Amino acid sequence: MQLGVIGLGRMGQIVVDRTVNGGHDVVAFDLDDDAVTTAADAGATPADSIADFVGQLGADKRIWLMVPAGKAVDATLNDLDPHLTEDDVVVDGGNSKFQRSVDRADACSAAYLDCGTSGGPAGAEVGFSLMIGGPEWAYEALTPVFDAVATGPDGHDRMGPSGAGHYVKMVHNGVEYALMQAYGEGFELLANGRYDLDMESIARTWNNGAVIRSWLLELCEEAFVEEGSDLGDVADHVAGGSTGTWTVQESLEQEVPVPLIYQALAERFDSRNEGRFSRRLANRLRYGFGRHHVARNE
Amino acid sequence: MQLGVIGLGRMGQIVVDRTVNGGHDVVAFDLDDDAVTTAADAGATPADSIADFVGQLGADKRIWLMVPAGKAVDATLNDLDPHLTEDDVVVDGGNSKFQRSVDRADACSAAYLDCGTSGGPAGAEVGFSLMIGGPEWAYEALTPVFDAVATGPDGHDRMGPSGAGHYVKMVHNGVEYALMQAYGEGFELLANGRYDLDMESIARTWNNGAVIRSWLLELCEEAFVEEGSDLGDVADHVAGGSTGTWTVQESLEQEVPVPLIYQALAERFDSRNEGRFSRRLANRLRYGFGRHHVARNE
Amino acid sequence: MQLGVIGLGRMGQIVVDRTVNGGHDVVAFDLDDDAVTTAADAGATPADSIADFVGQLGADKRIWLMVPAGKAVDATLNDLDPHLTEDDVVVDGGNSKFQRSVDRADACSAAYLDCGTSGGPAGAEVGFSLMIGGPEWAYEALTPVFDAVATGPDGHDRMGPSGAGHYVKMVHNGVEYALMQAYGEGFELLANGRYDLDMESIARTWNNGAVIRSWLLELCEEAFVEEGSDLGDVADHVAGGSTGTWTVQESLEQEVPVPLIYQALAERFDSRNEGRFSRRLANRLRYGFGRHHVARNE
Amino acid sequence: MQLGVIGLGRMGQIVVDRTVNGGHDVVAFDLDDDAVTTAADAGATPADSIADFVGQLGADKRIWLMVPAGKAVDATLNDLDPHLTEDDVVVDGGNSKFQRSVDRADACSAAYLDCGTSGGPAGAEVGFSLMIGGPEWAYEALTPVFDAVATGPDGHDRMGPSGAGHYVKMVHNGVEYALMQAYGEGFELLANGRYDLDMESIARTWNNGAVIRSWLLELCEEAFVEEGSDLGDVADHVAGGSTGTWTVQESLEQEVPVPLIYQALAERFDSRNEGRFSRRLANRLRYGFGRHHVARNE
Repeated sequence: MQLGVIGLGRMGQIVVDRTVNGGHDVVAFDLDDDAVTTAADAGATPADSIADFVGQLGADKRIWLMVPAGKAVDATLNDLDPHLTEDDVVVDGGNSKFQRSVDRADACSAAYLDCGTSGGPAGAEVGFSLMIGGPEWAYEALTPVFDAVATGPDGHDRMGPSGAGHYVKMVHNGVEYALMQAYGEGFELLANGRYDLDMESIARTWNNGAVIRSWLLELCEEAFVEEGSDLGDVADHVAGGSTGTWTVQESLEQEVPVPLIYQALAERFDSRNEGRFSRRLANRLRYGFGRHHVARNE
Repeated sequence: MQLGVIGLGRMGQIVVDRTVNGGHDVVAFDLDDDAVTTAADAGATPADSIADFVGQLGADKRIWLMVPAGKAVDATLNDLDPHLTEDDVVVDGGNSKFQRSVDRADACSAAYLDCGTSGGPAGAEVGFSLMIGGPEWAYEALTPVFDAVATGPDGHDRMGPSGAGHYVKMVHNGVEYALMQAYGEGFELLANGRYDLDMESIARTWNNGAVIRSWLLELCEEAFVEEGSDLGDVADHVAGGSTGTWTVQESLEQEVPVPLIYQALAERFDSRNEGRFSRRLANRLRYGFGRHHVARNE
Repeated sequence: MQLGVIGLGRMGQIVVDRTVNGGHDVVAFDLDDDAVTTAADAGATPADSIADFVGQLGADKRIWLMVPAGKAVDATLNDLDPHLTEDDVVVDGGNSKFQRSVDRADACSAAYLDCGTSGGPAGAEVGFSLMIGGPEWAYEALTPVFDAVATGPDGHDRMGPSGAGHYVKMVHNGVEYALMQAYGEGFELLANGRYDLDMESIARTWNNGAVIRSWLLELCEEAFVEEGSDLGDVADHVAGGSTGTWTVQESLEQEVPVPLIYQALAERFDSRNEGRFSRRLANRLRYGFGRHHVARNE
Repeated sequence: MQLGVIGLGRMGQIVVDRTVNGGHDVVAFDLDDDAVTTAADAGATPADSIADFVGQLGADKRIWLMVPAGKAVDATLNDLDPHLTEDDVVVDGGNSKFQRSVDRADACSAAYLDCGTSGGPAGAEVGFSLMIGGPEWAYEALTPVFDAVATGPDGHDRMGPSGAGHYVKMVHNGVEYALMQAYGEGFELLANGRYDLDMESIARTWNNGAVIRSWLLELCEEAFVEEGSDLGDVADHVAGGSTGTWTVQESLEQEVPVPLIYQALAERFDSRNEGRFSRRLANRLRYGFGRHHVARNE
């Protein structure tokens, strides 16, 4: 089938590659001409403007947006909307906040699918896991494309109405934070424990048959192979955090305790804060009652 | 090569099966005659006593213990020790506390390998992940057996000297607790969130290509398939906890923060406590300062 | 000075009492006539309508609202606003969300002070702690009233511009949750520990000279005196949670880790949830890999 | 009554001062002659050796040890024991581990009281809170001394048999860690929040009438007065941790969840660790799946 792809960054190019390889007829557009050229080299038909793009798609347009979450999605939808009808389908494959996807679905002239996409650039070859929300007919219309972008038919499903796809993806990311930190705690203890251990060997041994084997653990193994068992100069600084923050915010509204996910998020904040005020105060309070030495910055 | 196996419960039988299938010559003993018969049916040579068992093994004995951690290990070693020499090798494949393994290695007349075994009964077909501590020559002598019991050569490694195997396994289990709870938090939020979602579909979709795919997530999927998306009558009661407790104890000694592992352990305790005193007091304190209604048991 | 008080519930009556006792001329109004009578008995001049109320206050009105946070504040302000000028001052002494106080200050025709009030009904005799936000002149104009309602001049201060008072009160409550839970954890361990201990004796001993002595600990002591060392039939059910939720929400926006406050809030949610899904899944997963017994509800 | 005091550091001198001021006849000994002189200046009778010390006490000796927990207690008891009979009473007023106090009580020729002492040097004037374990007759024999050292009769009590005093003190300290961190979190959010706030003013206002008022909060106020609202050069480094560690260890044995106390302890560990391995791994894993930038140390 024919698919238009807007947004040809790392993830968008993978969508182009996988759909072209899946036998689909892909029209590709990006504000960056070089990105369009790359997509054309991969077998897509280039478009040099939104007008050109929609012109090439004709009626019953199926459009995949792979632009950064936030303003870029709105800007693209603003440009597209005059060209859309209720027979068209737009997929937002980015990490949008689920409430925003509900709003956009309401506002969009076409059917709108919010599609949580997991797997990252590293998933280019095996395919992604796609969590999709929106009208059932639109999901079915796009199924051949989802089959190609995902690992296959089992790698995507319709989670529910508008927003449900990005909702499930949001929670996925919250879990992801906690899993990363859980592995990290284990390796931290092993790295600081009473034996002199080889993290690469441990990760490899665990990845072969252990209960805790996983793709993230394979990435731990890769990290130790590439950075060394002590992780070399990798800094204690974890960036990101918006999807984890949304997960905790939603859990507060639903009154569901998520202490591990919260703590994993707090560790990120902690890694980015210098000189935690809370602990500085505790340091000083120990002097207050016990006249203990106060450690001071030089 | 020849291997003696003592302890023919669920896990011991798997060791027998995998080593017999690996072409090894296995002598099997258990206090339970039926278990010995099962092992014999699987191709092992039965032994009807420790004396018979050691007699059949001859010199350079290689013995795998798969008995419950704790007293059963000591009792078995007591019976075996008079028959052992420094050319023999004993493997403890159970979940022993690492300090106990160090003590046993010191006391044992044979070379002693502590072997953390992960994968559980569900790992019978793919093979286990084996984390081994003890003398290098003994590890090498047993390598053909480890190749058979593990997923293959990549599924086992020598972690370090005595205790290192059970040490790494202990931390593995701490991480396992946290991973289980992390997935649980995600599904709890999804199950109580603002969409009506199908947990089985989510788990399957995630297992195909998502960053958080793992064997534990496959087991989540299996759980939803077998129990339903609401887990039916499965109770909020998580048993077990010794290896997680040991992990936290060790982290306290090493002064390594493991908040996610701790919290996962605390959730188990919490699931087994009725009427948390801390929260009962908080309930009452809200009356104390604010004259809020005190909820009371009927 | 003259003060009008609207909202004569438990807290509002205390404001009336303390200001009347402080020598102020108080006009009191509530939708509930009985409450107005009670205030009149305490020395206030009753008003039988908003019109009557504002009529009695004359120019340069100083009005204290002590109505429930939320819609009641807006409804009262709606009724009042036609009668207000920029020379008047309105104080919201309830637990309003700080962002709402900023909005109301913008919309109100009078100067608007948001006043976090801590101490609860139990603080009637010692006086309250008042955290105030809004225009400096308005804070100064009300100072005689604040002196009377608070413990004295040290019991109130202007925290900053509009919203700052309720902001500081919000954080106060987050800390309060954590303190309550911290004491609760200590007493829970003592109540379940290896000695047979008397909680009342412990609380009393601690309240006399210990580092952790506090008003909340005095309320713990009172609880043990009144309910018994085992807290009798007090239930494991902690109500409330909005200010704690706001505190965590704000900490997420500011990327400040507040793990203790979060956990204290999560304990409340936990106390109100039956059968945590996360732990039910963990229970089932232990069967998944280890064939452990699955506890089931009957 | 007559009391012998061994150990004349900061806390020991306070015991001397308070008992002398209480009208007791105090004999004082320390390995440091200057400390003995100080005690003598305060009204105690100096002793220049253990032999001299016990000689001056005569029969029915009542001895208070205020030496550092650990080896110093054992060394002192070794020296004392030949001079002790079952009619004598020894009090250990330090922060000993409760299990050690049980052992010492068993081994000591005199009756042995373990006495948790809270209040710190800052409590010299108001008196301490004393939590005492051991034989009832011995507790009663020492009551006049406890009345003087504590805030008064309400400031001490017999918690139970040997070890119970140090057990309750251990939990007290666990709670103390959590309280300090809870206040710290609140002030950290206020210091990093959306208003420009004065911590000293907030602490003072809270200390006058707020639900969360406490002695620790008075010490927060003092800290802000002395160090400034930003705590100046006070470092993010919290020393200590043994009693908190014991509390968590005991909670693990009793299977009582103490997440706030645990987290407060973990914050101390965290403040002393450079470059948390767990977060360095999480940083690298974000590259692993998402090709996100890896922050690196320079």
